[in-house]
Amino acid sequence: MNHLTSACIDLLKEIRVKTPLIHNITNYVTVNDCANAILAIGASPIMADDIGEVEEIVSISSALVINIGTLNQQTITSMIAAGKKANELHIPVVLDPVGAGASSLRNKTTQEILSQVKIDVIRGNLSEISFVAGLKSSTKGVDTAEEDEKNDAVDIAKLIANKYTCVVGITGEVDVISDGIRVAKISNGNKLLSKVTGTGCMTSSLVGSFCGVTKDYYTAAVVGIATMGIAGEIAFLKAGAAGTGSFHIGIIDALSNMDGILFKERAKIDETQY
Amino acid sequence: MNHLTSACIDLLKEIRVKTPLIHNITNYVTVNDCANAILAIGASPIMADDIGEVEEIVSISSALVINIGTLNQQTITSMIAAGKKANELHIPVVLDPVGAGASSLRNKTTQEILSQVKIDVIRGNLSEISFVAGLKSSTKGVDTAEEDEKNDAVDIAKLIANKYTCVVGITGEVDVISDGIRVAKISNGNKLLSKVTGTGCMTSSLVGSFCGVTKDYYTAAVVGIATMGIAGEIAFLKAGAAGTGSFHIGIIDALSNMDGILFKERAKIDETQY
Amino acid sequence: MNHLTSACIDLLKEIRVKTPLIHNITNYVTVNDCANAILAIGASPIMADDIGEVEEIVSISSALVINIGTLNQQTITSMIAAGKKANELHIPVVLDPVGAGASSLRNKTTQEILSQVKIDVIRGNLSEISFVAGLKSSTKGVDTAEEDEKNDAVDIAKLIANKYTCVVGITGEVDVISDGIRVAKISNGNKLLSKVTGTGCMTSSLVGSFCGVTKDYYTAAVVGIATMGIAGEIAFLKAGAAGTGSFHIGIIDALSNMDGILFKERAKIDETQY
Repeated sequence: MNHLTSACIDLLKEIRVKTPLIHNITNYVTVNDCANAILAIGASPIMADDIGEVEEIVSISSALVINIGTLNQQTITSMIAAGKKANELHIPVVLDPVGAGASSLRNKTTQEILSQVKIDVIRGNLSEISFVAGLKSSTKGVDTAEEDEKNDAVDIAKLIANKYTCVVGITGEVDVISDGIRVAKISNGNKLLSKVTGTGCMTSSLVGSFCGVTKDYYTAAVVGIATMGIAGEIAFLKAGAAGTGSFHIGIIDALSNMDGILFKERAKIDETQY
Repeated sequence: MNHLTSACIDLLKEIRVKTPLIHNITNYVTVNDCANAILAIGASPIMADDIGEVEEIVSISSALVINIGTLNQQTITSMIAAGKKANELHIPVVLDPVGAGASSLRNKTTQEILSQVKIDVIRGNLSEISFVAGLKSSTKGVDTAEEDEKNDAVDIAKLIANKYTCVVGITGEVDVISDGIRVAKISNGNKLLSKVTGTGCMTSSLVGSFCGVTKDYYTAAVVGIATMGIAGEIAFLKAGAAGTGSFHIGIIDALSNMDGILFKERAKIDETQY
Repeated sequence: MNHLTSACIDLLKEIRVKTPLIHNITNYVTVNDCANAILAIGASPIMADDIGEVEEIVSISSALVINIGTLNQQTITSMIAAGKKANELHIPVVLDPVGAGASSLRNKTTQEILSQVKIDVIRGNLSEISFVAGLKSSTKGVDTAEEDEKNDAVDIAKLIANKYTCVVGITGEVDVISDGIRVAKISNGNKLLSKVTGTGCMTSSLVGSFCGVTKDYYTAAVVGIATMGIAGEIAFLKAGAAGTGSFHIGIIDALSNMDGILFKERAKIDETQY
């Protein structure tokens, strides 16, 4: 077991002891799954998006997750206000630029958030992160466009991590996480994860949950992303044959049963230098 | 196997190859199920309702589904703008007038959409469609009122189909689909479908999904509606005894496993002339 | 079997015969579960929050449930308008002050609703109800803060019940329900209920459902709360070992199978005088 995997296991234990409160400003499609994923891994979710309360809510939270999946004029204002408040109080902020590249509003909003709020972790698929990188991206809705696969995820992750002094997590067949210097690759997961809506959103909420218990956001991103990959593998074994409905429930089941032993058995985290 | 059933089976294959992007402006009650149903049948969902992006989102989509389940002033504007853009680009539009007849706002909105947007398929229960037909309707919330059962679904479907030059799908114990000339009746389904919220909404999203791969919206409506009926039967066999929670998950499971063989075995589609 | 348990069993039968329409103005996190819980117990849900229709929708409903879980400026206005209309028509109103104490907006809104709308049942956890009581409360997000456990739930329930001439339901390890004179304690439930989001919201929607078939709101609150506790126990036996995803589905399963026999077997309702 490498050092990084060992650090992940420590965080898995710590989160169930500390149950950090995680503030989510997120979309109405996958919000229930995000809340249940946060509870399953041992943290405590609060969803609040009205401008009249987001600053106060983030102030009592251990991390903020901003997800632009069904953004609108009201929630964009709240995202920025909550993000600024989080910055002021040194509360970590995770950004999930869902569908970045699919519309000018999503592009503009992503850039606006990045220019006004110090983001600690950005998590998205290769299409979304390529857009954030300013590379030509052809997002197909909220999923990764095939031609983006050619881009080198490691280079893009490092580029963005350095540009915004943050951690970048690009999820895909192999997940790539970088803080600009270190690069981790995770080979966990299952293809069926792309057939359930919200597995990306849940991953971002898990990353946010772990950011609530450590200042080492790189390891928080690694454990959050690896945990979802492992949950996908376990869910596939138990429920994949039944169909995507049972697989979906199996993901939450697996998250709620996640512990150091399971993680150690299954984690495929590689941190050679790239 | 009749010609219509055979055409449905072709679409079932085609959708998994083409994975069309389906734009949904829908309610926040059943949106997660709609997204998962769309994924399960082989298409790709995108939910977006802000006026700042709906025209752009619909432009990259293969179909638009408008569902007024939890309509509000903001989303109504977006529904009409997206619908007009879809018309301009010859992208098919499906309307689900959830709860039409239950409030003046829903009535007015349904009429406003129908007057400003060319709708390709309207799908609802008998109460909702009776209202759209201008017949006296006593909608009880979002479910079919008993007295509406007396109305002849075939006549109403034809009436509306001719009035709006569209396809009409009335779902109930026997589903009726008409393009004004042809009439199909589907005898699939299970009573428990009315005990899970969103089975109607999911059906509309499935119809929209199939509209994304063919210009034959009549067949798209038939296969979308039949698919949900068959999924309900399979879910009932596997999970009906456990309760409505497991049955709910079983619907998504069945949709994700749906193929030509299953469809051929179970479809009860009748297209004699009425 | 005591008299109160027997009265609960009568309501369990009655709700499946009458299928009352229950209007919910609620949050987008747990709304799907609330709708499915209402259907599972035998009532019929309608979710509507636009100011343009809430008064009309509540007018055709048998009860209104107001849940401030993801309140915003628009929905607050709708909550109050719908509540006033319900009062005018003698339709019962249930309030779930989700996260009261966590932000000024939630505090202010709770007080505003209580001052402008006659509430028939307030249901919350001890932190939320302590705040409503004006006692020093340290809400940790939307869950009960540990130090609140010291407060005596019975005293607080009675205090609030008398102050607002309503029924108060405080859910926790032991649930306490009071109308200011009578006090019932329910010892059903399972710890895992706190690991699934929305079990509190569902409980409020169940209480609202039973308020739709009786003017005895005290018994309605008791049966609604006891039903969720029993469902939690059954779900734990059937699915607890699998994880919180399966447990979540098991709750809806158990609600849909709930009847007088199951209720009689499991209900632990104590109504000695306190």
